[in-house]
Amino acid sequence: MAQRLIVIGGDAAGMSTASQARRRRDRADLEIVVFERGHFTSYSACGIPYWISGLVSGPDDLIARDPETFRTKYAMDVRMRHEVTAIDLDRREVVARDLEHGGEVRERFDDLVYAAGAVPVKPPWADTDANGVFGMQTLDDGAALRDWLEAEPRPRRAVVVGGGYIGVEIAEALIQRDLSVTLVEAGSQPMATVDGDMAELVADAMRGLGIQIRTDLPVTGLEQRDGRVSAVVTAEGPIPTDVVVLGLGVRPNTGLAEAAGFPIGPTGGIRVDRRMRVAELPGVWAAGDCVETLHRVSGMPVHVPLGTHANKQGRAAGINIGGGYATFTGVIGTAVTKVCDLEVGRTGLREREATRAGFDFISVVAESTNRAGYYPGARPMTVKLIAERPSGRLLGAQIVGWSEAAKRIDALAVALWNGMTVDDMTSLDLGYAPPYAPVWDPVLVAARKAVDALAALDR
Amino acid sequence: MAQRLIVIGGDAAGMSTASQARRRRDRADLEIVVFERGHFTSYSACGIPYWISGLVSGPDDLIARDPETFRTKYAMDVRMRHEVTAIDLDRREVVARDLEHGGEVRERFDDLVYAAGAVPVKPPWADTDANGVFGMQTLDDGAALRDWLEAEPRPRRAVVVGGGYIGVEIAEALIQRDLSVTLVEAGSQPMATVDGDMAELVADAMRGLGIQIRTDLPVTGLEQRDGRVSAVVTAEGPIPTDVVVLGLGVRPNTGLAEAAGFPIGPTGGIRVDRRMRVAELPGVWAAGDCVETLHRVSGMPVHVPLGTHANKQGRAAGINIGGGYATFTGVIGTAVTKVCDLEVGRTGLREREATRAGFDFISVVAESTNRAGYYPGARPMTVKLIAERPSGRLLGAQIVGWSEAAKRIDALAVALWNGMTVDDMTSLDLGYAPPYAPVWDPVLVAARKAVDALAALDR
Repeated sequence: MAQRLIVIGGDAAGMSTASQARRRRDRADLEIVVFERGHFTSYSACGIPYWISGLVSGPDDLIARDPETFRTKYAMDVRMRHEVTAIDLDRREVVARDLEHGGEVRERFDDLVYAAGAVPVKPPWADTDANGVFGMQTLDDGAALRDWLEAEPRPRRAVVVGGGYIGVEIAEALIQRDLSVTLVEAGSQPMATVDGDMAELVADAMRGLGIQIRTDLPVTGLEQRDGRVSAVVTAEGPIPTDVVVLGLGVRPNTGLAEAAGFPIGPTGGIRVDRRMRVAELPGVWAAGDCVETLHRVSGMPVHVPLGTHANKQGRAAGINIGGGYATFTGVIGTAVTKVCDLEVGRTGLREREATRAGFDFISVVAESTNRAGYYPGARPMTVKLIAERPSGRLLGAQIVGWSEAAKRIDALAVALWNGMTVDDMTSLDLGYAPPYAPVWDPVLVAARKAVDALAALDR
Repeated sequence: MAQRLIVIGGDAAGMSTASQARRRRDRADLEIVVFERGHFTSYSACGIPYWISGLVSGPDDLIARDPETFRTKYAMDVRMRHEVTAIDLDRREVVARDLEHGGEVRERFDDLVYAAGAVPVKPPWADTDANGVFGMQTLDDGAALRDWLEAEPRPRRAVVVGGGYIGVEIAEALIQRDLSVTLVEAGSQPMATVDGDMAELVADAMRGLGIQIRTDLPVTGLEQRDGRVSAVVTAEGPIPTDVVVLGLGVRPNTGLAEAAGFPIGPTGGIRVDRRMRVAELPGVWAAGDCVETLHRVSGMPVHVPLGTHANKQGRAAGINIGGGYATFTGVIGTAVTKVCDLEVGRTGLREREATRAGFDFISVVAESTNRAGYYPGARPMTVKLIAERPSGRLLGAQIVGWSEAAKRIDALAVALWNGMTVDDMTSLDLGYAPPYAPVWDPVLVAARKAVDALAALDR
């Protein structure tokens, strides 16, 4: 008799798991049942800001594979609009509710994959009955915001609350739709994943686009008129607006898992081992935005909700369920984004993270260009490196620049992954030609500067 | 009394050496004399094709620092248009001829740096008295070609002999100047630094620009009319032309060094140790296009004339002469270029090189895109990986793609530098966002494919 795999959550992590398991075990050997409470499977949430701006034409473009494909090509029993409401580990059953037609089903499992993703952080003040307030995590969120922007009366002003990646990307998208946009951030800088000096370059670019930035300003409430949001309330007075987008980040969606007794780590994510097994629960797996993972530099657990990790984790879980061996060995915090033409990349630890992890370190900032200075289109590129003292081991790197800057973080990410010192890095054989780099690559310039900074401290 | 450093050759390697030595030892401690036979110091030879095409405005843009700067800011005795004609290691003297005003000088040294660069490969048939035949190695070469292209009668047809980087870049430059261009290559493909399958993508792009490509066709002679070149002669008949550019590569310029008894390696380059000391000749150093270096993957000596290596080697030599410790630990063959919008990157060994070095290996070619498929401007990107069997260690990588493709080779170069296996690489934390990569980065897609290929051979 076939064994049975139940997957909770039909997005990147869940469907990667299911697909990899299916590659290794056919339907006679393994039944696969997927419960997804939403309307979509396997979509790119990271693409939503570009759908809002109009760069990407519609939600269909953001969907990698639809439920029917999984059913017909992968022989999976995909049940859309089904919300799992309970997990019974003793009986090895889940209970799911049909959100569309009502009713409840109980389904037995041999293996269970928990891939319920993350939920947006929503402060109490955002719990409102006013229309015009949007989270920005699912395709449904994106569709709702697009509808609101296109309905009468047409919104003219927007407030984005929170200056993380999503907040910054949505602010840019709304400016491109000709709204007047204010980004409100409780902390001292937008783009808190890079250090303040680098974030200031990003903030300048945002201001250049016409985005107003208000920092150190927590939002404490909302005002409404005629059922529509009319302002966000702050200590410096209300900021009038026709639409509010929440970009306050997400937290692991673990309610159901916690109720079933899954172990939860210090970050709020589910604790899994490197094979994506939930600690001490045989036959139970978790992957994606609901789990915590190892930061390979700090050695500490972190919660990094990102599609690329979800896919890798799901792939590892699925290979293991399929009888193979695969691991997810942690992250180093690599991320890239853009604000209009300004590109941002980061990897490893920023200064505050390095301090918190107990490192002694130096940092250097090196100015260079993306191309040979004389080559047309040469633009400034700023590379920041953080290196341990006195070992010189690279701990983190950040790049801000115009044109072909962000993905250069990958070379630094691979250096960091391999534990290279900045001294080692000065020897690296990187690609050189005038359209792509000065004869001293920006990465090498920064590494040399870091070596000098370490040497100066030794003297 | 001050010691004295003599530098033969005032380009990248020589001037980097001299500058680094000066940083550590002032003029009271170290006199520095530089002999340069040409008209320029420290210029970007790699930029010449872009000067020919008109993208870069003039030779001044290509000069990093002029002789006067070295004299005044670095307190060096820079003697332009002086050709060293003999090195006497016993007396520790060099003899130099003043090419401008005639006469000869003898100068004593304590330390000697040989940085005489490379000379173009020039087959006997190219030894002609016809006008309109150009090498392409120095600024003087570039100036001569530009003058020829602008003089009457205006050349309309060009033949580029040799399909290496310079040949390909010059062919593109000439097409951009509206000449009818034929590239003639003795081997089976242009761009022989990548494998045939990848080179075919480059050849297609070149043909798309209107460049005619003739392969397996050695040039055997030149025809002339009225003192001007009129055709190149081949086994398939003459190819009429108004200008011939030689892109047949360069060889180490070692005549003087050999005469003085410097050790020459199997590649024809001077043998140096990792501190850039010439083997067994105390106080004698060499750097740049005249030396051979270690290929870190094959373990074999190679001659890779490239500005970025020349600068690093010169820096190491200069630090050592200055009393510090610095090494140049070899290359892995990283290179990038472009043909119009098609970008090419390579690192490590290509298939033929891996075979020659005795590796058993697999290769895979993975098709992907530079951005998320739905993001505007997504273009194909082809990544080829070569991995050792059965270890899975990365031996080489090649990328061909449109837009933001070439410099992605750096991440692969750093992986290769660190001896990563393709299996390790599938876990790498690379930057992901829709404008920069699909959720599975092209590098990861290729690494996964290589892992599968290795596993298939194990079964």
